[in-house]
Amino acid sequence: MPVHAEAGISETEHQSTHDLYSEFASIRNRTIELMGSLSTEDCCVHSLPDASPAKWHLGHVAWFFETFVLAPYETAFKPFHSAFRTMFSSYNAEGETHPDPKRGLFTRPSLSVIQDYCRNVDERMHRLLLSPPDEDEMLYALTVLGLNHEQQHQELMLADIKHLLSQNPLEPCYQLPGKGLFVNLPATPASMHWQDFDGGIIQVGYAGQGFCYDNESPRHKQYLAPYRLASRLITNGDFLQFIEAGGYRNSGVWLSEGWDWVRSHNQRHPIYWRRNDHEWQEFTLMGMQPLQANLPLVHVSYYEADAYARWAGARLPTEAEWENAGSRQRIDGNFAENGHLHPAAAHPDNSHDSHDSHDSPYLAQLYGDVWEWTQSSYSPYPGYSPAKANPSKPISAVWDEAVGEYNSRSMVNQYVLRGGSCITPARRIRPSFRNFFPARTCWQFSGIRLARDI
Amino acid sequence: MPVHAEAGISETEHQSTHDLYSEFASIRNRTIELMGSLSTEDCCVHSLPDASPAKWHLGHVAWFFETFVLAPYETAFKPFHSAFRTMFSSYNAEGETHPDPKRGLFTRPSLSVIQDYCRNVDERMHRLLLSPPDEDEMLYALTVLGLNHEQQHQELMLADIKHLLSQNPLEPCYQLPGKGLFVNLPATPASMHWQDFDGGIIQVGYAGQGFCYDNESPRHKQYLAPYRLASRLITNGDFLQFIEAGGYRNSGVWLSEGWDWVRSHNQRHPIYWRRNDHEWQEFTLMGMQPLQANLPLVHVSYYEADAYARWAGARLPTEAEWENAGSRQRIDGNFAENGHLHPAAAHPDNSHDSHDSHDSPYLAQLYGDVWEWTQSSYSPYPGYSPAKANPSKPISAVWDEAVGEYNSRSMVNQYVLRGGSCITPARRIRPSFRNFFPARTCWQFSGIRLARDI
Amino acid sequence: MPVHAEAGISETEHQSTHDLYSEFASIRNRTIELMGSLSTEDCCVHSLPDASPAKWHLGHVAWFFETFVLAPYETAFKPFHSAFRTMFSSYNAEGETHPDPKRGLFTRPSLSVIQDYCRNVDERMHRLLLSPPDEDEMLYALTVLGLNHEQQHQELMLADIKHLLSQNPLEPCYQLPGKGLFVNLPATPASMHWQDFDGGIIQVGYAGQGFCYDNESPRHKQYLAPYRLASRLITNGDFLQFIEAGGYRNSGVWLSEGWDWVRSHNQRHPIYWRRNDHEWQEFTLMGMQPLQANLPLVHVSYYEADAYARWAGARLPTEAEWENAGSRQRIDGNFAENGHLHPAAAHPDNSHDSHDSHDSPYLAQLYGDVWEWTQSSYSPYPGYSPAKANPSKPISAVWDEAVGEYNSRSMVNQYVLRGGSCITPARRIRPSFRNFFPARTCWQFSGIRLARDI
Amino acid sequence: MPVHAEAGISETEHQSTHDLYSEFASIRNRTIELMGSLSTEDCCVHSLPDASPAKWHLGHVAWFFETFVLAPYETAFKPFHSAFRTMFSSYNAEGETHPDPKRGLFTRPSLSVIQDYCRNVDERMHRLLLSPPDEDEMLYALTVLGLNHEQQHQELMLADIKHLLSQNPLEPCYQLPGKGLFVNLPATPASMHWQDFDGGIIQVGYAGQGFCYDNESPRHKQYLAPYRLASRLITNGDFLQFIEAGGYRNSGVWLSEGWDWVRSHNQRHPIYWRRNDHEWQEFTLMGMQPLQANLPLVHVSYYEADAYARWAGARLPTEAEWENAGSRQRIDGNFAENGHLHPAAAHPDNSHDSHDSHDSPYLAQLYGDVWEWTQSSYSPYPGYSPAKANPSKPISAVWDEAVGEYNSRSMVNQYVLRGGSCITPARRIRPSFRNFFPARTCWQFSGIRLARDI
Repeated sequence: MPVHAEAGISETEHQSTHDLYSEFASIRNRTIELMGSLSTEDCCVHSLPDASPAKWHLGHVAWFFETFVLAPYETAFKPFHSAFRTMFSSYNAEGETHPDPKRGLFTRPSLSVIQDYCRNVDERMHRLLLSPPDEDEMLYALTVLGLNHEQQHQELMLADIKHLLSQNPLEPCYQLPGKGLFVNLPATPASMHWQDFDGGIIQVGYAGQGFCYDNESPRHKQYLAPYRLASRLITNGDFLQFIEAGGYRNSGVWLSEGWDWVRSHNQRHPIYWRRNDHEWQEFTLMGMQPLQANLPLVHVSYYEADAYARWAGARLPTEAEWENAGSRQRIDGNFAENGHLHPAAAHPDNSHDSHDSHDSPYLAQLYGDVWEWTQSSYSPYPGYSPAKANPSKPISAVWDEAVGEYNSRSMVNQYVLRGGSCITPARRIRPSFRNFFPARTCWQFSGIRLARDI
Repeated sequence: MPVHAEAGISETEHQSTHDLYSEFASIRNRTIELMGSLSTEDCCVHSLPDASPAKWHLGHVAWFFETFVLAPYETAFKPFHSAFRTMFSSYNAEGETHPDPKRGLFTRPSLSVIQDYCRNVDERMHRLLLSPPDEDEMLYALTVLGLNHEQQHQELMLADIKHLLSQNPLEPCYQLPGKGLFVNLPATPASMHWQDFDGGIIQVGYAGQGFCYDNESPRHKQYLAPYRLASRLITNGDFLQFIEAGGYRNSGVWLSEGWDWVRSHNQRHPIYWRRNDHEWQEFTLMGMQPLQANLPLVHVSYYEADAYARWAGARLPTEAEWENAGSRQRIDGNFAENGHLHPAAAHPDNSHDSHDSHDSPYLAQLYGDVWEWTQSSYSPYPGYSPAKANPSKPISAVWDEAVGEYNSRSMVNQYVLRGGSCITPARRIRPSFRNFFPARTCWQFSGIRLARDI
Repeated sequence: MPVHAEAGISETEHQSTHDLYSEFASIRNRTIELMGSLSTEDCCVHSLPDASPAKWHLGHVAWFFETFVLAPYETAFKPFHSAFRTMFSSYNAEGETHPDPKRGLFTRPSLSVIQDYCRNVDERMHRLLLSPPDEDEMLYALTVLGLNHEQQHQELMLADIKHLLSQNPLEPCYQLPGKGLFVNLPATPASMHWQDFDGGIIQVGYAGQGFCYDNESPRHKQYLAPYRLASRLITNGDFLQFIEAGGYRNSGVWLSEGWDWVRSHNQRHPIYWRRNDHEWQEFTLMGMQPLQANLPLVHVSYYEADAYARWAGARLPTEAEWENAGSRQRIDGNFAENGHLHPAAAHPDNSHDSHDSHDSPYLAQLYGDVWEWTQSSYSPYPGYSPAKANPSKPISAVWDEAVGEYNSRSMVNQYVLRGGSCITPARRIRPSFRNFFPARTCWQFSGIRLARDI
Repeated sequence: MPVHAEAGISETEHQSTHDLYSEFASIRNRTIELMGSLSTEDCCVHSLPDASPAKWHLGHVAWFFETFVLAPYETAFKPFHSAFRTMFSSYNAEGETHPDPKRGLFTRPSLSVIQDYCRNVDERMHRLLLSPPDEDEMLYALTVLGLNHEQQHQELMLADIKHLLSQNPLEPCYQLPGKGLFVNLPATPASMHWQDFDGGIIQVGYAGQGFCYDNESPRHKQYLAPYRLASRLITNGDFLQFIEAGGYRNSGVWLSEGWDWVRSHNQRHPIYWRRNDHEWQEFTLMGMQPLQANLPLVHVSYYEADAYARWAGARLPTEAEWENAGSRQRIDGNFAENGHLHPAAAHPDNSHDSHDSHDSPYLAQLYGDVWEWTQSSYSPYPGYSPAKANPSKPISAVWDEAVGEYNSRSMVNQYVLRGGSCITPARRIRPSFRNFFPARTCWQFSGIRLARDI
C-alpha cells in the first residue's frame, strides 16, 4: 500500500555495490517467484480499494527504481514508457499518496509488458550498480530504500491476493498447504501464561547502523510502569469462546466506533471464517481449510482485538511495551521464507530452553506468524523529523520526493502493529519496526497478544 | 446486460434443426471473433456496475444454452461444472435478475476454461440439434431465443469493452479504423429537414411469423396525431452548438432530474468527448479520434437527449411515432456487420432515389448507427402478458424461467430506444424491436432524432 | 412538494375580483386552520428530504403571491423582507426547483413572523384585488394559479406532518378521530367486482372553461382497447392476504427495481403499519389505531401497488383508462372538507341507485379517499407545450417564471396518480387532474385500484 | 455530546448536602439562563448529526438525575413520563452511547413540558438532598457527577446552537457582543515567543481530592524530552498568512487523511469564516463580525491544526507537555462566566508580572479562550481501569451504568484537547482535564498552540 513507508532511512551499512546488486537480484527474484502461481487474470484484479492488482505491484516496484534511482543517476536517462510514470506511481493525479483509483482497470499494459519493464529496469540497475558514480552514498541509500520498499510490496501483494481469491466461489488455492501446517497439530494447545516486565526508563527506537525507516527514529527514552505480556498469541480456539459467549452481540465489550463497525458490516466472526453445516472453516492461501483451534487467530481488526482483550479482562500492549520485550529476544519465527504463508501453532513446550537469553522472559510467536495490534496510535517519536536529504547534495529533491514526509503524513487515525507475520520477509523486521493500519483493517495478517498491568 | 430480454417469443418460423445448428454455429463464431482482439486481461475486467467482463458474457451465453436447452433435452444431462450454474447466471444470489456483483473478481475460471466450457456446450448442442427429440417445438423456440440472447450479448460486450478501454491512459484501440470512417468525410453535412407523417389509428407491435420478444406484442391499435420527424440524426456539430451556447450550464433546458445529474457528475460534454488543447476528441473503439462534426452524436443519456431537443425547440419522438415511420422503411443501415463499430455520416444527398418506397417520407440513418431515444417510458402494451409456455407441456417450467416475467419486470423508470446501432447485429433488429435503458445511461450507443408536432 | 405544479393554466373562468378575493380569503383561512392543531415546534421540522416544515409551506404560499402577483401589480412594490425572497422560494440557490435543503434549519424567522408576513400579503392582496388595474386578465390568472398552488400545499402539509408525527415515540395525534371513522365499520366489506368499459377512440385532457394545469392539455384523442376496472379500492384486508402469502419475500411478483427497494429498505409492510404483539396497527393523523380490514389501503409506493396487482393477476389502470371512467362519474367522495383525513370504507351496497348515471358503470371511491396509482409514466400529452404568457404583454416574464416549463421539467421517472385523496381539497380535483410522484413515494395518501384487459 | 464522559470519579470532596443542593440549583439556573435567548424553535432543531437540539440537552440533564440519582434513592420512585427514559437517554435503541438519531424530530414533548420535567426533577432533588439517606457517599458522588455532566452539556449546547444559527441566512445573534470584544482591540498583537520546559520524569493525571473523570487517572509517571511551547495562541492573522500562502491548496503540508478531508469538503478556510467582497468575516454567537486579526483562531479541525503547525515549522504539543505546563499555572482565563462567548485577544504585555509564579514560564491564554488540540490520541493512562462502584454496595449497578466503561469506549480515533474555552464553565476545568473529539471536528471551540522540540 503506497501510503506506507516510501520512507526515510537514517544511516546505511556499507556493502559493495556488487553485493548490493546481488541483493537486488535476490529480492527481485523473490517478487517474480511470488507471482509464479498466479494466472494472468489473477494479476489484473484487486478486490478492495486499499489493495492493488499484483501486476500493479510489479510495475510499481520497477517504477520506484526507475524514478528514484535511475532517473537521477543513469546517464542519458529515458523512461521505459512515458505513461508508466503516472500509471505506476503511488501519487495519484491529485498529488495524493494513493495509487490511481483506476489501477484495477489497467488491462493494458499486459502483464508481459510489465515483466519487460521490470527486466529493463533490472538491466539498467545492473549496469548502474556495477559502475556507479564515485563515492555516492545517496545512490546507495536510495537503492537500499528501494529494496525495503519492494519487500513491503511482496507482503502487500500476498495479502491482496488472499482477499481476491477469497471472493471467488471456486475457493482457489494460492499454493498447496505445506507439510504439517494443518495436520498433525498438537492435540493440546500451548498454555498461555503471563510474563512480567519491570518498569522504568527504557529506550525506544532504532539503535543500529543499518537501514531503518524514519518513523523508527530518533531513539529516545520512555518511562514504563511494570507490565505483563501473554506468553503466546490468541488462538482460534480462544476466539471461538468469545464468539460463543456472544462477543459479537454484546455492545458492552466494544469501543463505540467498533460497535458501529460490527453493526454496519453485520460482522459475526473474523472475515475469512465461514460457518459450514455446523463446522467452522477458514479461507487461507491454501484454500478453504477446517478451522484449527490451536492455530493463531489472524485477520482481525483493531476493534476485534480490543473487544477480545476487554472481554478477556486484559488489554492490548503499547508499542513501547512490545518493543521493550522484542528487543530482548532473537528475531526468529514463522516468516515468509518458511513458505507456510499461514501462522503456525505455538509449541506446547515453549520453555526457556528454546531461546537464547535465560535472563529474560520468553514470548512465543513474538516475531512472525501475525502482526500484533498495539493500543498505540501511530504518531511521531519525540524529536522526530521526516527524513530529509542533505540539501547541499544535488540529489536532495529526489530524495525528499522518495522518502521525505511520507511516513509522517499517515500519522493520524492509524494504529501500530509489531513483529511481522508469516508473509513478511524476515529481513524486513527489526525490534523497532512499526507497521500501521486504520483500526478497521482486517485483510492484513493481524492478530492479538494480550497485556496487563501488574 | 442481463436484465434485458431473457425474453419471450410469440411464434417461430420453421427451419430444419440442421439449419438451426448452422445459425447457432455462425452466431457463436461471431461471438468468438468479437473477442479476438481482446487480451486475456481485457476479458477479465468491467468498469461499470451495469457492465460485465467479456469472459463473463462468454460464460453466460454458454450457460443459457446449457441451462435452458441442454438441461431439459439432453439425455443424462450433467453440467460442465456445478459452480458455473450460479457464477454465470443472470440471477444473483438474492433471486434478482442482475449478474453476481462479484463477477469482476472471478479471475478463475480462466478465459481458457470458459472457452472449453463454450466448446463443450457447442458439441452438446450439435449432438442435440442433429438428432432432436421428435417434433418438439419448444426445443426449437428455446434455441431461437438463445440465439437472440447471444446476439444481444455481442452488442453489450462491445459497449462494455469500449467503456473499459476508455478508462485506460494508454487509450487502446479495440480495432483499427475502417476505410473512410474518420477521413474523407463529406465537407458539408447532410441537411436536416422535417418529414411529415399523417395521424390516425395505426398498428403497433410485431406483425410477422418469426421471432420477437414478448414485449413487442400484442400488436395493437394506437391513435396518433400528425407529427414530423427529422430527416437525419443529430450530429456532433449540431451538439457542439448546444455546448457552445452554454447548454450544460443552463438549468432551464434540463429536466429537473437531468439537472441534478449534470451537477452531481459535473457533466460538461458527452462522456467520451475530451477537450485537448482547444481541440475536441472522441474516444472510439478505434482509439482516440479528432471529433468529426458530421458524424452522428453518440453516447448521450436521455437527459442530454431531452435537453438538446428542448433547446432546439423540438422534442423526442414517441416509440409509436418511430415505429410508424420505421415500419414503412427497409431495414438497412450501418450495423455491426459493417465492421465500422462507429456511427457513420449521413449522405448529403439522402434523396428519395435511394430508397424503395416513393410514397413514404425517407429518414436517413433510421436503422443502425445509433439507438434513438424516444420519450416513451418502457411499459407493457395493452393486452400484454408475459411469455408463458403451454402449461400442458412438461417443459413449461423451464420456459417460464428462461423467458417468463423478464421483460415485464423491468417496466419502470426505463426509456425506450429504437432502430439499433453500429454495434447491433442486423438480424436482431425489427421495426417493432424495443430496447430500453434507464435515463442516465450513456455507455450504450445512443443518440438523438428530433420530432415535432405539426 | 415544490416540484409540483407551479404550473400553467389554460383559460380562466370569469368571476369578479371581489369574488376572487373572497375565495382567496377562504382558502387562506383554511391554510391557517389546518395549522391550528400544530405546536410551534411541529411547524418547524420536516422529517423527509422531499417534505417541508409547515411554517415553510406557510411562508411559501405567501411568497408565491408576493412574487408573482404583488411584485408585478402592486404600486411601489417593496418586499416584506428581502431575505424571504430566497428563503421561501421553490427555486434553490442552484436554480433548481427544489426548496432550500436547509429549510429545516430555519428556526428564524419564527412562526409568528411568518404569520405576520402572511397577514401582510393578505392585506396587500385585498387592496390589489379590490382596486385592480383595468382589464387585466393576467392578474386574474396569476391569482387563480396561486389559489390552486395554495390548496396543493395544504395537502402536502398534511402529508408532511403525518410523517413527522409518525416518527415520534409519543405517537401524537394531529386531531381526534371523527365519528364513525374507526368504529362501527361494516362487518362485511363491500364486495369487489369488475366494471367493463368499451374501447375505441376517447378524448383525454381538460375540456372545460375553468382553471387547469398545463399538463392537462391539450385535450386529445387516444385509442383504448376494452378494459375493466375494480368496483372499489384495495382494502387493508386485501393487502394483508398479500403479506401473509409472503408477498414481501417473493421476488417474482416485484419489478426488479421494486425488489431492490424492498431489500434495501428491509420493507415488510406499508410504512405506517406496525406489528404490535400479534396485532396490526396503523399510524394515522388520529394517532395509532388498530388496523381496520375494511378501510382502503393507503401509503403504498408504485412498487407495492404494481407487486400487489401482479400477485392478484391484474394490473394497474392507465391514466387514460382512469380518466375515461372518471369523466363519466360525479366528483363526489371523501375529500379534505369531510375532516376525516383518512380514507373511509366503501359502502357494502355501492349499487347503481346511489349515483347519477344509470348508463355507466359505477366505481366506488373513485374520487377522494386515496390517490390511485396508474401504470402511466408522467409525460407530455401530444401537442403539449409548456404554459407561456402572451409575449406581447409586459407581464409575460413573470408568468413564465411562475408557471412556464415547470410541469414539463418533472416529466421523467414519475408516475401519475388520479382522483384525489381524503386530504385533498375537493375543489382541486378534476377528472383530468394529474398528480405525479416517483415510484418509491409512500408518504403521500396513495392506494390501489386494479384493472384488467377484457 | 453524549459519547463524552458520562464518566467516572475517583474521590469526592465533602460538602454538606445542603451546600450540594445550592450548587445544583446554581448550575441548573445557569442552564436555564443559557437557553433564555433562544426561541422555542431554536430549541427544537439541531444541524449536525453529532449535535443535539437545546431542548434535548435540557431533557437529558434532567434525565440523568432522574435515572442515576432519583431512581435508586427516591422513596417510591416513579418516572415523570415513562417514554422520557428512552427519549432523553444517551443510549440509543441499539445499546449505543449515542442519543436517538430521531431526537431532532421530537417536536413533542414541547419545550414547556420539558421545562416542567426539569422543575419536577429539581423539586425531587431538593427533597432528596435536604433529607438524604444516612451516610451515603454514593448519592453524593452521583450528584457531583451529574453536576459535572450538566456543565458539560451547557458547553455542548452553546456549540450546537452556534452551528445552527450559522446555517440561517438571517445570520441571527445568540447575544449582543460584550464591551470591547470586537472593538478597540490592541493595534499590535501580542508577540509570540517560545517558552522552554525541561525534560525528565513528570507526573501526569489528577492529583487532588476533588472530582475528576476516570480518564484523568491514575496519576502516573512519564518521561518528557525538553520542549518549548508558544507563548500565546495562533491568531486569525497568523492563520490568514497560511491561507494566503496557499495552505489549503498545498497537499504537502497536510496529513493524507486531512487532504482527503480538504478535498471532499472543498474546504478553503475555517468553517465560520466567510469571504464577502474582499473582506473576511466570522460568524460568532454575536452574529456575523468582521474578522479580527488579533483574536485567537477558533473552530479548526485537528487536520487544520496539524497542517498549520507543519507549515509553520512546528508541531502540536502532546497532552503530557501541555499538562506539565498547565499544572504550573493558575487556572485563569476567558471562560463562559465572562459572558464573552468568544475568544479574546492576548494582552501585548503578557509579562511575568501578571502571574503568580516567577519561576515558571508563563503561557498566555493557556486556560479558556479555545480548546487546544494536542497531537495525542485519546487513550487510557497506564494502569487505567474504568470507574467501578464498590461492588459490596447495592447501588453499584447504577453507578456502573452511569459512569463505568464510558470514557474508555471512546478511546479510538479521537484526539485530546486541553485547557477549556470561552464557552466552558470555569469550574469544569482542571490541569488534568481531557477533552477529546474526532480529528474532523470543527464545530467545537478548538484552536492552536504550537510546540517544538528543543
